[in-house]
Amino acid sequence: MAARGMATAVAHPNVALVKYWGKQAGAGNRPATPSLSVTLSGIATTTRVEAAPADRLWLNGEEVQDAKVAGFLAELRTAFDIPGLAITTDNDFPTGAGLASSASGFAALTTAVDAAFGLGLGGTERSAWARRGSASAARSIFGGFVALVERDMEPIAETVASAEHWPLAVTVGVASRRMKSVGSTEGMERARATSPFYKAWTTSTHDDFAAALRAVRARDFDALAEVAEHSSMKLHALTLTSRPAIVYWAPATVAALHALAQLRRAGTGVFASIDAGPQVKAFSALDDADEVAEALANVPGIERVIRCGIGPGAVVTEAG
Amino acid sequence: MAARGMATAVAHPNVALVKYWGKQAGAGNRPATPSLSVTLSGIATTTRVEAAPADRLWLNGEEVQDAKVAGFLAELRTAFDIPGLAITTDNDFPTGAGLASSASGFAALTTAVDAAFGLGLGGTERSAWARRGSASAARSIFGGFVALVERDMEPIAETVASAEHWPLAVTVGVASRRMKSVGSTEGMERARATSPFYKAWTTSTHDDFAAALRAVRARDFDALAEVAEHSSMKLHALTLTSRPAIVYWAPATVAALHALAQLRRAGTGVFASIDAGPQVKAFSALDDADEVAEALANVPGIERVIRCGIGPGAVVTEAG
Repeated sequence: MAARGMATAVAHPNVALVKYWGKQAGAGNRPATPSLSVTLSGIATTTRVEAAPADRLWLNGEEVQDAKVAGFLAELRTAFDIPGLAITTDNDFPTGAGLASSASGFAALTTAVDAAFGLGLGGTERSAWARRGSASAARSIFGGFVALVERDMEPIAETVASAEHWPLAVTVGVASRRMKSVGSTEGMERARATSPFYKAWTTSTHDDFAAALRAVRARDFDALAEVAEHSSMKLHALTLTSRPAIVYWAPATVAALHALAQLRRAGTGVFASIDAGPQVKAFSALDDADEVAEALANVPGIERVIRCGIGPGAVVTEAG
Repeated sequence: MAARGMATAVAHPNVALVKYWGKQAGAGNRPATPSLSVTLSGIATTTRVEAAPADRLWLNGEEVQDAKVAGFLAELRTAFDIPGLAITTDNDFPTGAGLASSASGFAALTTAVDAAFGLGLGGTERSAWARRGSASAARSIFGGFVALVERDMEPIAETVASAEHWPLAVTVGVASRRMKSVGSTEGMERARATSPFYKAWTTSTHDDFAAALRAVRARDFDALAEVAEHSSMKLHALTLTSRPAIVYWAPATVAALHALAQLRRAGTGVFASIDAGPQVKAFSALDDADEVAEALANVPGIERVIRCGIGPGAVVTEAG
């Protein structure tokens, strides 16, 4: 496509099966541990960029200042000649509440800028740039099951299995639409500096990653359920044992965990994953998704149920 | 008092400021870490024992079989000549739901048996026997602030500060009256065997114990709040990262945590402690207890608020 200083891109949030929490020292947003996610279908961020006299950003229809976006653009401009940008970005799901809006946001922004100004980035390069905005954004560039690992001292994201390989359902129970109290970057730094469990977290997550990758390749639901729930619980154990503690859960988060455990005891294959926020993401076979969605909808305090699948990476939808 | 084969004793649950979770290998119920608790006033277990043709146990008016009580009596009889026992024990608070009914229960039982059959045990010996029924029962023998530490390879409980030294209020928010899903003994063993954080827990708890002891001696509320909440969160981090995970919290547990954090942000000195169950114990100055009780009563899902203080050890109320 010709690069005429305008483009729109769509990207999707992702949910990590093996969680990321904690950065390496130094610049570049390098995760301290490997992670493995699925990119979602069903919810998306749409971001349009256009050359403008100065940078301005509209998020969900409102003009905002965002230090992370400003820092990202400054970094991008050290490598590329990019004019001022008018950016409009819209999420069709709650923003900043543990639904990975920064992942889809930076994936869409990077993809749109690449298309608008003809940067000619490949997927791996776009992913590396998106990571500098938000580490988990590196994964949302790609579709399906996506690993973010360190290779030759450099983080690299790649699809390890397609959505067609294992088309699971991901049913999101929205426990609260409020913005989270402590952002991920601050929460990660607090865990690294103060949780007595941080070291064991980084060590044990390498084993979790290997186990989850094996389970995905073998389509072994029970094995994936076991390790993914464990990884999710470990992330929250880290935030709870940070000083001061961070309680990302809402009452309905716990209610949903108990409801899903009950469903599993009754024989339905389902497991829960929770990111840095109150929402509960339930993984199941497609055939069980109706039952899971109904169970979540019946949980007191769950405001909304969003039905997702495993989806594609970031794409350009308009450029001119 | 003459020992004529009958006695009644009253003992109180305790709430650990520095939690106990995990036993040493081998027999005797020896904790893997030091712990520090307050014995409560305001809620109690009353236990009556009387010589009988065979052991029978009535708990809250209902005859029950209890393997822990049976094992405890068998162990006691290896050291003392004790006849069959008719035991009636009553809790004026929810049983088996994280309110330390086994602590007050075994403290009262040991104290009653000692009095009924003239075993002549001192406090330290009663505490050591009570521990064999339930490790935290070792602390409920004594009043005030009670430490359970290892000395000469043997656990020993003792009062480290009296209730009068620092008369705090302990306000209990009952989030659920249901029995807990996984008992403490099983939960502790699961954490030891499967949580990647268990080793760091045992190591770091020694520091917490020292910090909490300093805070109690100095009556430094903020310092005690910081370390006690951290210790409580660590216990739950262990249960969440056990495989499979144990979620002791109810939705109202999380709601109460958020409500108390809100109260603290507004300037009231209060901190939360949660044992292996859903109930939330809020510590504050006596002067702030009305406000704390009102805040807990207003939390959705909190069924009942119980106002406690720091109370005395186990006592004999009747012997004949």
